[in-house]
This record gives sequence, C-alpha cells and structure tokens, in this order.
Amino acid sequence: MPSIEENLRRLGITLPPAPKPVASYIPFVTVGELIFISGQLPSREGRVAFQGSVPQPISLEHGQEAARLATINALAILHEACGGQWQRLGRIVRLSVFVQSQPDFYQQSTVANGASDLLLAVLGESGRHARVAVGVSALPLNSTVEVELLAAIRAA
Amino acid sequence: MPSIEENLRRLGITLPPAPKPVASYIPFVTVGELIFISGQLPSREGRVAFQGSVPQPISLEHGQEAARLATINALAILHEACGGQWQRLGRIVRLSVFVQSQPDFYQQSTVANGASDLLLAVLGESGRHARVAVGVSALPLNSTVEVELLAAIRAA
Amino acid sequence: MPSIEENLRRLGITLPPAPKPVASYIPFVTVGELIFISGQLPSREGRVAFQGSVPQPISLEHGQEAARLATINALAILHEACGGQWQRLGRIVRLSVFVQSQPDFYQQSTVANGASDLLLAVLGESGRHARVAVGVSALPLNSTVEVELLAAIRAA
Repeated sequence: MPSIEENLRRLGITLPPAPKPVASYIPFVTVGELIFISGQLPSREGRVAFQGSVPQPISLEHGQEAARLATINALAILHEACGGQWQRLGRIVRLSVFVQSQPDFYQQSTVANGASDLLLAVLGESGRHARVAVGVSALPLNSTVEVELLAAIRAA
Repeated sequence: MPSIEENLRRLGITLPPAPKPVASYIPFVTVGELIFISGQLPSREGRVAFQGSVPQPISLEHGQEAARLATINALAILHEACGGQWQRLGRIVRLSVFVQSQPDFYQQSTVANGASDLLLAVLGESGRHARVAVGVSALPLNSTVEVELLAAIRAA
Repeated sequence: MPSIEENLRRLGITLPPAPKPVASYIPFVTVGELIFISGQLPSREGRVAFQGSVPQPISLEHGQEAARLATINALAILHEACGGQWQRLGRIVRLSVFVQSQPDFYQQSTVANGASDLLLAVLGESGRHARVAVGVSALPLNSTVEVELLAAIRAA
C-alpha cells in the first residue's frame, strides 16, 4: 500500500506551510483523539485563489478545484497536528463544505467531491468521512468555498 | 417505558434501508463513543421529496415534514451504526438543520422542530439534543432541508 | 493570572441566567469530555437585540457586538454545564459563527472576531479555539448572528 507521502508525491501535491495562528483563533485544537481544524479557504501563498459563487463567475469545475485546494490547506494543518507524522493519523471523521452558491445552483455535492476525492486519493481508506455540503450566500474574503475538517488521531 | 421499536410502530414509521456509501464519503463514522452521520436530505426511495425554499414554494408545515423525513433517514443510518441494536444507542448529542430559506423567512427554528420533535417522540429522553438551525440560500438537489445528526453510543 | 470571574468583572460582563430548555432541544449536551452547546442568538432578557444582515441594516461594528452578545449567552450555558465551577472548564474547542450577510459582504471573519476576542479576554489561553465563519441569508428570528460553541471539560 503506498504511503501518504507517496500519494502526495504521485499527485504532485506539496503541502504548504501550515498557517500560523492569527488573532484569537488557532488552526486546530486537539481534544482526546479528535482534531478539530479551523475552516480553510482555497488560498495559495496567502491569497484566496477562487473568489465568487458557483456556477457564475466560478464554474463547477473550478469550484471543485477550489474545494481541493482548501482541503490541501487543511491537510497541511492536519500534518502539523499529527506532529509531522502521518502514521499518527487515525482517520478523517467529518468534512463540511460550504459552497458560495447562486440561488439556483444545486450541485453542492459535486463541488464537495473535489474535497472528498482528494482525501480518498491521499489518505486511502482512512480518508473516508461523513460529510455535510451546503450552499451559502457569502463567505469570508469572497471565497468560493470554505472547508472544515475533523480527524481522529490513532488510538495509542 | 415503550421501546424505540414500539415508538416507531406507534408513529407509523418504517425505517428505510440505510443508504449505501456513495463516492468517497460514507453514511457515518464512529470514533470513540461518537457517531457522526452525514447530512441527510428529505428523500424517499432515492428521490428528494421536498424541493425549494420555505415559505415559498414549500410551506412552513411542509418544511417541518421535510425536516422530519430527513431525520427518519438519519435514524435509519443510526440504527445501522448501532449494529441494528437500539439498546446500544446512548443518546442524540447534536442536531444541525439547514433550511433553504427565502431571505425574509425567520422561522428556521419552527422548521427544525419537525426534526427535534421526531427525535423526542421516537427516542424519548435520549432523543434530547443540542441544536443549530440556520437558513441557507441553496442546498444539494434543491432540497428544502439538510439534517446532520451526531449521536453517542452507550458507554460499555 | 486573573481568574475567569475576575475577567468577567473587569470586562463589566454579568452572565445572564442560562436559558431553560425549550421544546425538544436543550441548551447543552455533555458526552465524554465534550460539551456541545446549542446555537445562541444575540438576545438579552429574552429578546433578540440585533436583527437584520451585515453591513445593512446592521453595521460591521454592531455585527461584532452581536457576536459578542451571543457568545456571552453561550458562556452562561457553559458555566452551568460546568456545574457553576469554571475550574472544571478545560478549554474552548470549536466556535461556529453564522453571520446574516448581504450577498456582497465578505468580512464574516471580522464579525466573528467579536466572539473570538471575547473568549480570549474572558478565558485566556483556554479560550483559544478552532473556528468556522460563514455568511448565510437568513437566521432564526431575523437574528444578525448565530454562535455555536463546543468546549471540553478538564480531564479528571
């Protein structure tokens, strides 16, 4: 079975540096075996790369890319939460995907697959998760999506 | 005290078969004593039965029925997560209800009562829960509501 | 280090009586070391004090005040969930802030800081949390914000 590092390499994904704590909230909180990760935007080098609602001005395909990019940012934080050791990851538990949507857009699940499929491709079976996908009218910084991840550390 | 099975019978509710895993996300994830259930739509035999926003074109009463139906689907998954044995259920912990809402509709709590009241009617005291109810502009498949359930298994 | 009670006094905050259970949902549920608190509105003496969307008719600054007020209500419940003893509080784990937003309003994070900053001011380091902030089109009772809090009890 390929390792998570091998999967990332094969997919051409380099995890960015995990964002530093800003203001009064922090990138993640661990309690018991649960790791709660703050909502992530599809940002790259500090700038939101996908802005606006789906399907206009952001296409369905770009919406999926946005969900994938936000999930990469969440994985970077998760890696740090695991102390840089993927073998400490138990599994992904829950994924929430908020999609900035035009009122007549109903394919939030398809957008969210950009996040779900990435988790499966990178983490294999331990990437499977419960999911919530909803459409919202506005997101911080006009972001196209916001992705929240809940994971579990491997029981010692 | 009537059993959960008796309550379901008295209410005329037959739990549908729990949906099979589709794509890369799954109906539920158990971690420790917590059972996270994926967001459920008011679907019946694979079709979403309530589409559109509240109070137009879906009335407040039909919005409540939609919340009830989505919760029945969540209960079907919960039953499976408990290995088909209700006595393994500890309690409902948290309920989120997303209501597709017209911008001037403010009775999301009343819609969500369709879900909350059902949980209490079926599960009794163990059905009481913390709750979040919000209005959103769009939901997958134009669903009127999406219901997310978090439950706890009975501590061994 | 000042105590939580001292912080509240210094900030001029008197926690209101925790709301009583209404209908079939309840103010909080404790499972293991986690305390799930129901979504709170910016209400005072039973009335929602901030109604409408940000930035019109509710300004950004008033939106922050609304988030702060809803968080005070959540703290009142948390205090009760801790049996009235702050020393039983482990930490804040997760904060969700739903902001009723005009479609072109993108500063949900700034509104949510009204909640986050209060938690830090009252609880110190144990007030730091993972966070999700999204914009929605409608909230119960036309509330400007809804705030959901997840906390952890101190491990015995």
